[in-house]
Amino acid sequence: MTAHGATEDEAAVRAANTALYDAFETGDIDLMTSVWLDESAGETATCVHPGWAPLHGTAQVLRSWSMIMANTAYIQFVLTDVSVSVSGDTAVVTCGENMLTGLPSTVADPTPGLAGGRAVATNVFRRTSTGWRLWVHHASPVLTSEESEA
Amino acid sequence: MTAHGATEDEAAVRAANTALYDAFETGDIDLMTSVWLDESAGETATCVHPGWAPLHGTAQVLRSWSMIMANTAYIQFVLTDVSVSVSGDTAVVTCGENMLTGLPSTVADPTPGLAGGRAVATNVFRRTSTGWRLWVHHASPVLTSEESEA
Repeated sequence: MTAHGATEDEAAVRAANTALYDAFETGDIDLMTSVWLDESAGETATCVHPGWAPLHGTAQVLRSWSMIMANTAYIQFVLTDVSVSVSGDTAVVTCGENMLTGLPSTVADPTPGLAGGRAVATNVFRRTSTGWRLWVHHASPVLTSEESEA
Repeated sequence: MTAHGATEDEAAVRAANTALYDAFETGDIDLMTSVWLDESAGETATCVHPGWAPLHGTAQVLRSWSMIMANTAYIQFVLTDVSVSVSGDTAVVTCGENMLTGLPSTVADPTPGLAGGRAVATNVFRRTSTGWRLWVHHASPVLTSEESEA
């Protein structure tokens, strides 16, 4: 693989990774569907939301995103420490998911403001004829702040 | 890929997955080292322990395992819902990690017994000339009990 090809791959993978969070932020299930593998090649999509057990299969995974997005009034991501490792037709991305979510409004407080949260994600992409598609998403809460704990 | 080859691949991946937990249970850093990619092919190993930020690179990952194993007097795993998806030279495994750990003994209670815990893991393996090696390990606590939450 040439350096040029590697750079192009990495840029395409980063764009695919960004599309996942764009889809979540905008509640766009069509974009979310286009992010994931359609499994026609035989792979089984896998998704672990923070604190959840794994979900398998594109249909089940997309149902979970529909439910989560329907229950999210507002969310905004700032991704940090985005790391990309491409090997052949597979790419592994890890990133910090720094979230800003809207708190539910109440009669007493109609403008309750925002809450922050932090998780880390591993996203595995597969090269397909229609570009890099998400094969695995695993997100989990970060309970320690030390990046260099080891 | 023939059905026969797929079955052989899946069996080899399952064995590689089991070796990860055998290494942890026995505190065998040599076995743990042989489980992970040595990165000579260019991939960067990634490891997310439950609640931790991601660690990158075999050296840093193995240091973390050495530290964790040195601080674990006793641990036993029962893996559940082991799912394997092989695509070309990459394999994705998800499994439930059901852990039994020894509680620290005290003067008041020299035989304090065992504690249980549960996590889920995504393990991504890469086919190499020396067999399937671990490229990505991401483990996270399970906060809900519903497998079919969505």
